[in-house]
Amino acid sequence: MPCDQSPLESIRIRFSPQLPSCLADMSTVYLEGKERLPCDSEVASIFSYGSTLPLVKRASSSKREKLSLKVGVVFSGGQAPGGHNVIAGLLDSLQGSELIGFLGGPSGILSGKYKTLTKNEVDAFRNTGGFDLLGSGRTKIETEEQFEQALQVCNKIKLDGLVVIGGDDSNTNAALLAEYFKLKGCSTCVVGIPKTIDGDLKNDYVPISFGFDTASKVYAESIGNLARDALSAKKYYHFVRLMGRTASHIALECALLTHPNLTIVAEEVFEKKMTLNQIVSDIVALIIERAALGKSYGVIIIPEGLIEWIPEMSTLMKELSGILSKEGGYSEEEIKAKLTSTSQECFFSIPVAIQKQLLLERDPHGNVQVSLIETERLLAEMVANEMKKIKDVSFHALPHFFGYEGRSAFPSNFDASYCYTLGAVASLAITSKLSGYMCFVSNLDKPIDKWDVGAVPLASLTHLETRKGKLKPVIEKALVDLNGKPFKFFAQQRALWRVEDKYSFPGPIQFDDGALLPPLSLLLESQ
Amino acid sequence: MPCDQSPLESIRIRFSPQLPSCLADMSTVYLEGKERLPCDSEVASIFSYGSTLPLVKRASSSKREKLSLKVGVVFSGGQAPGGHNVIAGLLDSLQGSELIGFLGGPSGILSGKYKTLTKNEVDAFRNTGGFDLLGSGRTKIETEEQFEQALQVCNKIKLDGLVVIGGDDSNTNAALLAEYFKLKGCSTCVVGIPKTIDGDLKNDYVPISFGFDTASKVYAESIGNLARDALSAKKYYHFVRLMGRTASHIALECALLTHPNLTIVAEEVFEKKMTLNQIVSDIVALIIERAALGKSYGVIIIPEGLIEWIPEMSTLMKELSGILSKEGGYSEEEIKAKLTSTSQECFFSIPVAIQKQLLLERDPHGNVQVSLIETERLLAEMVANEMKKIKDVSFHALPHFFGYEGRSAFPSNFDASYCYTLGAVASLAITSKLSGYMCFVSNLDKPIDKWDVGAVPLASLTHLETRKGKLKPVIEKALVDLNGKPFKFFAQQRALWRVEDKYSFPGPIQFDDGALLPPLSLLLESQ
Repeated sequence: MPCDQSPLESIRIRFSPQLPSCLADMSTVYLEGKERLPCDSEVASIFSYGSTLPLVKRASSSKREKLSLKVGVVFSGGQAPGGHNVIAGLLDSLQGSELIGFLGGPSGILSGKYKTLTKNEVDAFRNTGGFDLLGSGRTKIETEEQFEQALQVCNKIKLDGLVVIGGDDSNTNAALLAEYFKLKGCSTCVVGIPKTIDGDLKNDYVPISFGFDTASKVYAESIGNLARDALSAKKYYHFVRLMGRTASHIALECALLTHPNLTIVAEEVFEKKMTLNQIVSDIVALIIERAALGKSYGVIIIPEGLIEWIPEMSTLMKELSGILSKEGGYSEEEIKAKLTSTSQECFFSIPVAIQKQLLLERDPHGNVQVSLIETERLLAEMVANEMKKIKDVSFHALPHFFGYEGRSAFPSNFDASYCYTLGAVASLAITSKLSGYMCFVSNLDKPIDKWDVGAVPLASLTHLETRKGKLKPVIEKALVDLNGKPFKFFAQQRALWRVEDKYSFPGPIQFDDGALLPPLSLLLESQ
Repeated sequence: MPCDQSPLESIRIRFSPQLPSCLADMSTVYLEGKERLPCDSEVASIFSYGSTLPLVKRASSSKREKLSLKVGVVFSGGQAPGGHNVIAGLLDSLQGSELIGFLGGPSGILSGKYKTLTKNEVDAFRNTGGFDLLGSGRTKIETEEQFEQALQVCNKIKLDGLVVIGGDDSNTNAALLAEYFKLKGCSTCVVGIPKTIDGDLKNDYVPISFGFDTASKVYAESIGNLARDALSAKKYYHFVRLMGRTASHIALECALLTHPNLTIVAEEVFEKKMTLNQIVSDIVALIIERAALGKSYGVIIIPEGLIEWIPEMSTLMKELSGILSKEGGYSEEEIKAKLTSTSQECFFSIPVAIQKQLLLERDPHGNVQVSLIETERLLAEMVANEMKKIKDVSFHALPHFFGYEGRSAFPSNFDASYCYTLGAVASLAITSKLSGYMCFVSNLDKPIDKWDVGAVPLASLTHLETRKGKLKPVIEKALVDLNGKPFKFFAQQRALWRVEDKYSFPGPIQFDDGALLPPLSLLLESQ
């Protein structure tokens, strides 16, 4: 143990997550199916193997012989609570087989850096947060050369299976890798596990990605505390930005858990083509409405991705990215001069500190790093400027950003058991010789006993998009559905939450009795 | 219930905090003592009554007659977890008496705004965070006119006792109010309860203020999560600023709980007369040391108060406060021009965004609002500038501030029982007709069974200081003692924590079995 074990950690690592009763005897369960899912012909042309795969579900047989396999696992991309439990679930269900873990993310596959995972080593990581058992990384395995390199390594180690724990991009690449392996006669089965705190990797089969539940609950704890503080001190508006790269699922889930006075849902802003000024005006209106009731405090939730969903900001940021991508670079003044006049106007309408953040370095893929843009300060400052024009209404804003502290938290009991089950499903997929699949657990809104399992062909989840001038298969991010039940429930409540103080204070995640409360969005969706 | 009860809240409000066994039969307990504490003659001249009071401890008698009293309670200043339990403890021990709560802080005393607290109403707030049962405020009762106003109100309501739940300033004013009441023949007993998350209200009798334990644990949860994230992603340095107005107790307690790579203790910076550049150089050295071990990540803890403890920054800020306090005001350029040359140099050496924060509005008492100064960004940017000069060492910083989310959290079991006991002690003090006292609970490092109680004359805790040209009694803030056991233990460990990853991940506060773990600083102090 490199780290010093905390009292809670020493309790948590001994917690046994439950498997659904359908997996009580793993030796009699396998995955199979015949139902072919519809697949677009262009997608089929890329996935000549993957597009022919059926949806598979749990089936039982008489006791099968124990296989002695060699399986590899890798963490890809940002941390999400529960990752270590996927590995624990894999290890426990693969008894008699060898499990190896690639180090530092997908680059560990390319360089062949890995370690054998023993029960002793994994035991110290059960039900803990983070990906530190193996580390993670953002390297993408997407070029022909990289596929070949991965194939060489998998062949050399003689891997029967490779489990990719990742988000939409990593799962897309897993689909392509499975395709490549099949084409080249490599027998390593590639399966994906849906991971992302953002909650935007879900579909008809995968109810939710893992980590979303814990991260939302960690943020909701802090938001509830701020709401209680606002209600006590009665003098601050808390502007809270929440992580979640594109979709507003986390913001919506936290709203359902805490009932803040205003929650901006980026998908709605886009749908209604709201401008930055309209958002600011709406917040100003809220402050005035509440002031009329004698309230000069409140809580406002802002999804991290918002800025890219406001039409004029999106245009501005695209123009800036285009200009900034030029080799050699320009001075700040030159950059500003190169903007279209509408974007110039937009740029100069926002606070100087935020202007500077818009000019920050892009990520290796040329994308703006939205988590570095303090949208909470942008809105707070713009609202403050408006409030100066209004007499006799007190306004003090406090900005907050909750993000990194939710990615590596101890997984909730929900995520702990969900991930442990996902690990077991991955082992079933591999022993069933499936490749090019995403594992799923269904009925997650019900008690664990009722959970069921299966796997869906990754190819069937993709569609084609133009990326850098080329048609590429992409697993689309699932956005907040404005016609879905979670949003509709929220939309029904929000007028009340806006003026009344109907805050709910969820408090810290409790682990005591192993009881689990699934995400509220999930419960509402399943109603 | 105005708010929507969360599942945890509905469990927590039914939790029964324990009273120490010495208070098992409150009807046989009272407080008395003969030991006069040393009192400076100048202090005695201000507290002609208070300076004659003895230290009082628990004593037992045969069953006493139940008194029917009227007692008022008020929250003063910033929120701290456990405040509602002080009220619950008061209410339960005052059975048969009437308890009223002043609304919106000390201003509620002046304006006579209060409500009667019934068991039903208090029940909904047991073991909850925040001060929203009554609200709080920062009005200080300190002028002759205000004392007289408070006296009129207390006389009119016929209060037997007034319980002030507050920090150092509020308790000093409670001492003066008790003195005034005694002088004017008002029979209301005034007693204080030591409240502040900062942990700087403690002395030979009061082991710790309430709220410190919970706030530290809330911050430590997030810091632990960041450490786990750093260890997984291996690419970020997290610069974490922690609330705590002056002293670094919270930073030290969080360091003991999480073992970050570097924790700045402001009192040490002051003692060693470290400059801002020396602090930056030390962080740069740490990054280089770790880079040599292949580590480009880490966690750095910064106490909020730091900036006022760096000698040259402190001088700069005092000069700025002097200039800014002038009526009419100056332009930014004029302000800068009025600085001494040393302070000008210091001012222009720091990032522009932080320069602007130094010029922000002062609080009503003319003090800089340090919580608005992003010392974490100041250090991260200055370190980044230095790192640019060093080749081949990767450095990415992420700034964080944890503050408001710790002030109104659900109290830990420690704070829940400690506060409930403090409420019982306040009722004992009032039934024992004590005025001008601060209630305390001793042996807090031991199991609740061993806790004992008493009260110390507030006057004995004060000394005289010049404030705005006048000698005023002041309860001195207890700073981190660089010769004390908590700091010494930390100082022994820190070289190891700096380079090795000995992080501890405390996780969220658990309430399950009522077990309590006192603050580590307290345990170390008592060793």
